Amino acid sequence: MSIYDKLRERGIEIGDRVRVLRDNEEIYGVLMPRYSIYEGENLLVIKLDNGYNVGIEVDENTKIDLVSKRERIVFKEEKVLFDKSKPKVSVLSTGGTIASRVDYKTGAVYPSLRTEDLIKMIPEIEGLVYLDAKQIMSKFSEDMKKSDWSLIAREVYRSMKDSYGVIVLHGTDTMSDSASALAFSIRNKSVPIIFVGSQRSSDRPSTDSYFNIKASIITALKAPFAESVVVMHGETSDSYALVHRGVKVRKMHTSRRDAFQTINDYPIAKVLVDRMELEIIGRIIRYRSNEEPVLMDKFEEKVALVKFYPGFDEGILDYFLEKKYKGIVIEGTGLGHVSNDLIPKIKELIDSGTIVTMTSQCLFGRIDMKVYSTGRLLLKAGVLPSEDMLPETAYVKLSWLLGNFKDLEEVKRLYLENLEGEINERLSLDMYPKWITNH
Amino acid sequence: MSIYDKLRERGIEIGDRVRVLRDNEEIYGVLMPRYSIYEGENLLVIKLDNGYNVGIEVDENTKIDLVSKRERIVFKEEKVLFDKSKPKVSVLSTGGTIASRVDYKTGAVYPSLRTEDLIKMIPEIEGLVYLDAKQIMSKFSEDMKKSDWSLIAREVYRSMKDSYGVIVLHGTDTMSDSASALAFSIRNKSVPIIFVGSQRSSDRPSTDSYFNIKASIITALKAPFAESVVVMHGETSDSYALVHRGVKVRKMHTSRRDAFQTINDYPIAKVLVDRMELEIIGRIIRYRSNEEPVLMDKFEEKVALVKFYPGFDEGILDYFLEKKYKGIVIEGTGLGHVSNDLIPKIKELIDSGTIVTMTSQCLFGRIDMKVYSTGRLLLKAGVLPSEDMLPETAYVKLSWLLGNFKDLEEVKRLYLENLEGEINERLSLDMYPKWITNH
Repeated sequence: MSIYDKLRERGIEIGDRVRVLRDNEEIYGVLMPRYSIYEGENLLVIKLDNGYNVGIEVDENTKIDLVSKRERIVFKEEKVLFDKSKPKVSVLSTGGTIASRVDYKTGAVYPSLRTEDLIKMIPEIEGLVYLDAKQIMSKFSEDMKKSDWSLIAREVYRSMKDSYGVIVLHGTDTMSDSASALAFSIRNKSVPIIFVGSQRSSDRPSTDSYFNIKASIITALKAPFAESVVVMHGETSDSYALVHRGVKVRKMHTSRRDAFQTINDYPIAKVLVDRMELEIIGRIIRYRSNEEPVLMDKFEEKVALVKFYPGFDEGILDYFLEKKYKGIVIEGTGLGHVSNDLIPKIKELIDSGTIVTMTSQCLFGRIDMKVYSTGRLLLKAGVLPSEDMLPETAYVKLSWLLGNFKDLEEVKRLYLENLEGEINERLSLDMYPKWITNH
Repeated sequence: MSIYDKLRERGIEIGDRVRVLRDNEEIYGVLMPRYSIYEGENLLVIKLDNGYNVGIEVDENTKIDLVSKRERIVFKEEKVLFDKSKPKVSVLSTGGTIASRVDYKTGAVYPSLRTEDLIKMIPEIEGLVYLDAKQIMSKFSEDMKKSDWSLIAREVYRSMKDSYGVIVLHGTDTMSDSASALAFSIRNKSVPIIFVGSQRSSDRPSTDSYFNIKASIITALKAPFAESVVVMHGETSDSYALVHRGVKVRKMHTSRRDAFQTINDYPIAKVLVDRMELEIIGRIIRYRSNEEPVLMDKFEEKVALVKFYPGFDEGILDYFLEKKYKGIVIEGTGLGHVSNDLIPKIKELIDSGTIVTMTSQCLFGRIDMKVYSTGRLLLKAGVLPSEDMLPETAYVKLSWLLGNFKDLEEVKRLYLENLEGEINERLSLDMYPKWITNH
């Protein structure tokens, strides 16, 4: 029985203010949740008044008393109406940094951002929009599964019918994968689907939540396109946000606000947040329309993304062969290579019915398997080239194709086709970033 | 018996000029090697006089005659002396685009660049340097194994004793991995080790071979540093080359000349090739010295690089557990995450004695596993954070540490230490590239 269980029996809960007396030392603070199941049974985490968390090992001589109960916060599903005659924008919360807040006073963790909070943060949209917020799950994005992509797709599909745009609040780690998943799983999109996240949580002074959410609402209201996009900070300052095509965007930095960047294409648009304007700077694949969207929400589980490197163990490919994987996206080197000694095993996979495709870990540029003999051997073995598709996008696309189409020849044909702007036929020189060389 | 074998019996070899008579059609050209073992037994590849290769299916009615024998090219190991009183620079050729040429006249494939060719291409170095070229292997870089890293290390170690610098000609696909391998496997480097490659082969008008090799020789002569570096085009034009620290560089484009870019650091130097000047623009970790280099050329085979993605199959980790892998470098999401359901399996690996480390697939920025609970759980399970190390560098480093140190505690301690500039303690804002936004 952990110390937390014992305290609960005595009516002391997370968020309560407590006094800890140990070795003649008196500690006042708020009882915080433990970070980890791996942490000792007797470890107590207390948030001190100076804001720091301390871990305290508790023994039989430690005395813990309740000072005051935490402030109760009641959550309910809310719909806040501004003006129902105004365009409705749906906000679906899936979790992640953008949708979670820690109350430093009480220690309570808000599971999601409420419509109320959205309204408070952007008073200037009052009268412009009717916001409808709903929490559809509460997950870190690193925990998202293919079944979550399907769930998000179904919820977005349902919401998009009477909305001017659907905003999805999402953790940033795998946000681009989910945005790709939505690009494929809702056909004939009628309105934009806008993924938005934040790199710093809403309770921190440096948070990018408000700026990004505001940019996403402007996008929902003003976008002429009906695509699955990611809206995030364009620079570290609050100058503008960028609208990236979901199938062409990647999280390129662990912590910066402008971590999301378009690869092998231009972003679709810039959002000048202060002026509430949206400026188109890239190509548009699909415009808003009155077409009926079509939901195709399945993703094949038995598809893997395999990164090649020197010393790669062939046994991993045997594993996929044994498990009867239906698709493998290789993240090869350069123009689309793996070591020549892997080719017979890859051919074996293909002969057994697995679809194997090739992308490049360079990320920038296009696969070309005709230049060197290694590439030609891979083509000959039946590996499908992926043009300039990102490895992650290729993985989502192949999972989606194998989930929704029975005929393997059709899967192959569609894989090579440009369905949602995931292939850019014309890479221009300036789509490669300007690398800083200290001069 | 393939058609090639039959021709060989008749004294007709690759590179010979032949006449093919089939269906009353007469084709003249040079007999080329077949690209692939997968190509039909009866397929003949002929280079026509207009430069195109054609594949011809041969049957019993086809007649093939020798027109003329190919010009014989005799390879020998050559040492070309300019002036032995001048600084000696060793050039070790491992293969790759930079070291291979196709003679379009004869169809013969040159296995390596000869010293003679080096001299012809850079007459302006005459009198400045004594070049000593040697072919140590002939491999595409995608075929490099850890045993090849060891071989290159031994050859470089041998050459560096009486050289002013050692240049390694290498294919570009995995050049940065080999450069990392050399950074670790020769301790106390006395002179620079310079990896150089080309994105387009020497026989093409757009080749970057000459420019890059010239830049590498200038680096060998003028560098004050003694590190393992990569020298490649800095821009698409022939303006300057960049000297990248091997442990901080990555091939970021499938085809551009300036594909190699430093991540999370500044390049060490710029080479102004026309002016034969080298300008230091970054930090130097190790200067030239009279210290005795130490060779530590082992790399543990049982180390893997594992990229995480949504839907990642836990069974892959079971595979490494069964095979008793000694090290696993995870390429996680964001600040260093995987899905929470993988953590127990990762803990099992660590408890079984596997060293597991975390890097980020974002590439840019630093791992920070203390921000979110997923990261804290991973730390608690014993996963080592890798700061701002590139995934590929972390993989090479862990393979090297496990190959050369018996004590696992020492391996862990050294993994977290900055040995060769692979960790940059001070990331500055301008180390993130300027992404092009079409404006």
